[in-house]
Amino acid sequence: MVKVKDLKWKQDMRVSELVDSYEFIGFQSVELQRASEVIVKMKKDSAKVFLTFTSNMVTSGLRGFFAQLIELGIADVIVTTVGGLEEDIMKATGEDFQIGSFQTDDVELHEKGINRVGNLLIKNESYMNFESLIERILKKLYEKQKRWAVSEMLREIGLMLDDENSILYQAAKNNVPIFCPAITDGAFGFHLYLFQQDHPDFMVDVVKDFGNILFASSFDDRKGVIALGGSISKHHAILSTLLNGGAEYAVYMTTAHRTSGSMSGANTNEAKSWGKVKDESDVATVIGDVSITFPLAMIHALDELAEDGLLESLKKNNEDSGVVK
Amino acid sequence: MVKVKDLKWKQDMRVSELVDSYEFIGFQSVELQRASEVIVKMKKDSAKVFLTFTSNMVTSGLRGFFAQLIELGIADVIVTTVGGLEEDIMKATGEDFQIGSFQTDDVELHEKGINRVGNLLIKNESYMNFESLIERILKKLYEKQKRWAVSEMLREIGLMLDDENSILYQAAKNNVPIFCPAITDGAFGFHLYLFQQDHPDFMVDVVKDFGNILFASSFDDRKGVIALGGSISKHHAILSTLLNGGAEYAVYMTTAHRTSGSMSGANTNEAKSWGKVKDESDVATVIGDVSITFPLAMIHALDELAEDGLLESLKKNNEDSGVVK
Amino acid sequence: MVKVKDLKWKQDMRVSELVDSYEFIGFQSVELQRASEVIVKMKKDSAKVFLTFTSNMVTSGLRGFFAQLIELGIADVIVTTVGGLEEDIMKATGEDFQIGSFQTDDVELHEKGINRVGNLLIKNESYMNFESLIERILKKLYEKQKRWAVSEMLREIGLMLDDENSILYQAAKNNVPIFCPAITDGAFGFHLYLFQQDHPDFMVDVVKDFGNILFASSFDDRKGVIALGGSISKHHAILSTLLNGGAEYAVYMTTAHRTSGSMSGANTNEAKSWGKVKDESDVATVIGDVSITFPLAMIHALDELAEDGLLESLKKNNEDSGVVK
Amino acid sequence: MVKVKDLKWKQDMRVSELVDSYEFIGFQSVELQRASEVIVKMKKDSAKVFLTFTSNMVTSGLRGFFAQLIELGIADVIVTTVGGLEEDIMKATGEDFQIGSFQTDDVELHEKGINRVGNLLIKNESYMNFESLIERILKKLYEKQKRWAVSEMLREIGLMLDDENSILYQAAKNNVPIFCPAITDGAFGFHLYLFQQDHPDFMVDVVKDFGNILFASSFDDRKGVIALGGSISKHHAILSTLLNGGAEYAVYMTTAHRTSGSMSGANTNEAKSWGKVKDESDVATVIGDVSITFPLAMIHALDELAEDGLLESLKKNNEDSGVVK
Repeated sequence: MVKVKDLKWKQDMRVSELVDSYEFIGFQSVELQRASEVIVKMKKDSAKVFLTFTSNMVTSGLRGFFAQLIELGIADVIVTTVGGLEEDIMKATGEDFQIGSFQTDDVELHEKGINRVGNLLIKNESYMNFESLIERILKKLYEKQKRWAVSEMLREIGLMLDDENSILYQAAKNNVPIFCPAITDGAFGFHLYLFQQDHPDFMVDVVKDFGNILFASSFDDRKGVIALGGSISKHHAILSTLLNGGAEYAVYMTTAHRTSGSMSGANTNEAKSWGKVKDESDVATVIGDVSITFPLAMIHALDELAEDGLLESLKKNNEDSGVVK
Repeated sequence: MVKVKDLKWKQDMRVSELVDSYEFIGFQSVELQRASEVIVKMKKDSAKVFLTFTSNMVTSGLRGFFAQLIELGIADVIVTTVGGLEEDIMKATGEDFQIGSFQTDDVELHEKGINRVGNLLIKNESYMNFESLIERILKKLYEKQKRWAVSEMLREIGLMLDDENSILYQAAKNNVPIFCPAITDGAFGFHLYLFQQDHPDFMVDVVKDFGNILFASSFDDRKGVIALGGSISKHHAILSTLLNGGAEYAVYMTTAHRTSGSMSGANTNEAKSWGKVKDESDVATVIGDVSITFPLAMIHALDELAEDGLLESLKKNNEDSGVVK
Repeated sequence: MVKVKDLKWKQDMRVSELVDSYEFIGFQSVELQRASEVIVKMKKDSAKVFLTFTSNMVTSGLRGFFAQLIELGIADVIVTTVGGLEEDIMKATGEDFQIGSFQTDDVELHEKGINRVGNLLIKNESYMNFESLIERILKKLYEKQKRWAVSEMLREIGLMLDDENSILYQAAKNNVPIFCPAITDGAFGFHLYLFQQDHPDFMVDVVKDFGNILFASSFDDRKGVIALGGSISKHHAILSTLLNGGAEYAVYMTTAHRTSGSMSGANTNEAKSWGKVKDESDVATVIGDVSITFPLAMIHALDELAEDGLLESLKKNNEDSGVVK
Repeated sequence: MVKVKDLKWKQDMRVSELVDSYEFIGFQSVELQRASEVIVKMKKDSAKVFLTFTSNMVTSGLRGFFAQLIELGIADVIVTTVGGLEEDIMKATGEDFQIGSFQTDDVELHEKGINRVGNLLIKNESYMNFESLIERILKKLYEKQKRWAVSEMLREIGLMLDDENSILYQAAKNNVPIFCPAITDGAFGFHLYLFQQDHPDFMVDVVKDFGNILFASSFDDRKGVIALGGSISKHHAILSTLLNGGAEYAVYMTTAHRTSGSMSGANTNEAKSWGKVKDESDVATVIGDVSITFPLAMIHALDELAEDGLLESLKKNNEDSGVVK
């Protein structure tokens, strides 16, 4: 039995020391420390790691952190929604987003041509620049081939970018596939539609991409899911690992609760019903805002992996495997 | 200024009386009463109504209620996720779901071949029956044509069913299009993939369907969004109405809060930034479980529309318009 | 096993019909229907019912509903916080509260002399009227005796009021004790302090009142707790029933979740650990805003009790018992 | 305008570096960084700081952290609930609490004589040891005087303890008063009652203590409130600073949302209505589990205060002032 231990401050405490002490505090801090350990376990066990996040997290400064995790070889598969990918491209091409407030006069913002995502602000201008860019991108893609599976198209776009903080760039460079099961649910979808009007033989093949995510891991692989937020990103990762026998490890970080029966609020207890999770120490559900909780859990995990000399080898290993061909 | 008024019970109170009294109680009850009034306004103003819901709501007994709303001419456009459509088909073909508990031994459930969605239970058997059915459905679709926009495919499936409590059936029968921007994110996706392996010219065209949702309303239409839960269903409806100049009316019902910056938690205050909402009385955000709040708001709205003799005409009007051709 | 059943609207549905149908919908609606049944069980089993609520609920229009429940003999013991009692007195003496909005300019409200509780508004004037009243009340109490247990003082105040929608009035008239373990945590506390400065022998005896709540039920009584919201109101009712061996029935309605380990979020699962709850059907936890959920559950329970001819006898029975002497 | 900046991991990052980077991430991380800065501002501005927390936080390992904050001179006034104080005494006298799980068989725990608070476990034995201790404590108090204001009684108990991780001990030693407006709402209340039965002249004077908290700060003092969780602890601190003209600084950390109109969910926006908050940079509301968020914000603040050489002087300053006489 683990005893509750009193937290004590000392100057210049490291993040990893704090997360270590969370194990003994109680409530969600205990879950967070375990989440960090489950991530370390996934990596040490060479599990295929599915990292999922929602669009708003890419709006935030977590975007470069996700890119770095891909670069460091932490994630083998990414699942996300199209809004985040659009914003990743905007940022990669020089657009800046601002910190605002949850409590604002939205009519006034509208008149200034500013869009709000929680307490983050995006100028209309940034969208317009994106839209002129996306036309050129689609032309290039079309010249190469007419029919694209989504993840293959996203990889191609990543190769066109040049920003080490970009998720698309790092994923393409490190052969990590990005799956986006609702590719049309954004400005990108509108431009795909306009482009297809002029080029009726241009096709986005979502069905083929289901095969790609299916073969991104196998029945024999050990698998881990790190799901940040809910939505179809989380569901799609769980679905595709389940079709390969289920994940051995699962970390869910979300603000949603199980009481509404939503996918966002489904906790890792259900993961035990997949039949492969060995025990409680292989899963963790952390209730809280991912902008706070994920950096904590991940920094602790990275520090531990680095200390054990595993970060470099993970990265190398990943480069050799070539998940997307 | 509206005064707080004390609620008083009297025997055999009607739902509509209770919702009327909510206007004077406070907190979320006030929002719920306004949500109901906004729905009535949408309909009286002949707005195109986009109704969105998440998969777990179709797992629940709200499914037949959604079907009835379509039959009554309340919704002009449906946006949802594929899991719900799968379960609508299961139920239409005789499968029963059970009420369970949030607190269960998930390992034991797994051994019994039972899946849990919150406090609802689905037998593996129901999925297997669905899967054998879906193969036959895909064959029939393929015989008709090789390339399908998602909403057109869903309409065709609806025409194959015969259950007045089915969403797909009522939508097909009443010319209400169902959009599902992530059609592969479920068992259906897996079967689409298997089918395409054998029939490489079989194509699901998600890009074309973006045009369909775009033309399901026009810039000149007044538009209303009723978004139950969050996820891409909500986002897709907002996106497509925004591209046509924004909705005049919006009702969001969700358990998520704005503080995490997620789409699920975005409230109707943002709707004011679309520039078309005239005032506070045209939007409402109700925080709470949709299984409780939506029936309340909707029953009150239906009673009011029925009393004004508007339900029949709405239905008739809808039958004439033929949204999906 | 209970099957999920599709909800269907029919005109002029009664609240009780809707709550009946909740049993078959799923998620929190199922919990709400059970909560209603547990309340009926408590009453049919002649359990001592502890009803607890927080201050903000008395700010709302639930206040007259609570008064009515006391009048109807539903509650045997009330536990609440002092803010609500102050507002009950304000309303009983003619003050009106207004419905406002969650999203307001609080600086502007302050300048207008208006206080906000969520989306409810209270004028400073109402507080000032209360304060001049409370001085006279304290004088009368002091003339009667120098040392007061809290519930005895509240009963005396109730007898001074004349408003059938008042909680204090109905409780005094129907011999239902009101416990308020933090009687100084409000404007009332400030005036008690000022009064004691001039009358040093004036004493409020909170310790004696612990005995009063302890003897409001006995070890042999069957006991039920209906806790609306959290806070010390909920805790105090649980504590005092536990000291008498624990409650057989418990209904918790709250917006808080168990994941933070707070009293507000503690669910009725823990009630099973008291050793007296027989099974799952005797407890229910409903997550949601009490302004919506409590009227639903309670109206259904009242209709059922009325139909069985039990409401009148409950009331009579209560009048005979004379809980507070 | 502050730009969103991408978070980047580097090895052995300090907590303060992470919290610094939160300013640029978005959503609750931005609020958390501001909360930390508001705490620093309070201290630099020599404001009287009211620190409030709920009982469950003392069950957790935050207890020793609160004691350390008192020792370091961070808090001038403590407001809390009695359950936490009981557990502080248990821990100070050698009882250990355990880390358990949110998902447990509560009936089984009951049979083993174990109580659960979220995912923390307390043995019945620990309560029994506390109860035998409290009898001796009350005897000593009674020998000294018959009538006790709550904070004076708590100070006396603190002086009887000898544990530097104890809140009561550090508060007594550093002349920081602890207010507990509902002193009877726990096992302590029961023992006060039993003791008073045998010693009818033993009185707990809650009314006098209202004067004590009122004079713990003055109209002329600058004041800051750090409210962790909600409940009467939070309300009592706000009330007593309001009666002295309102606080200039406020940090609320909670899992509750404003949408239910509860005290727990009231955010610092309302603080602006007190008329003394100068601008947005003096208040912060952080939604999240305090076991995670408070250490982060506070460690960052302590590091900053230590770096500026202010920690020692704060402590000294506090020792000189002698808040409780």
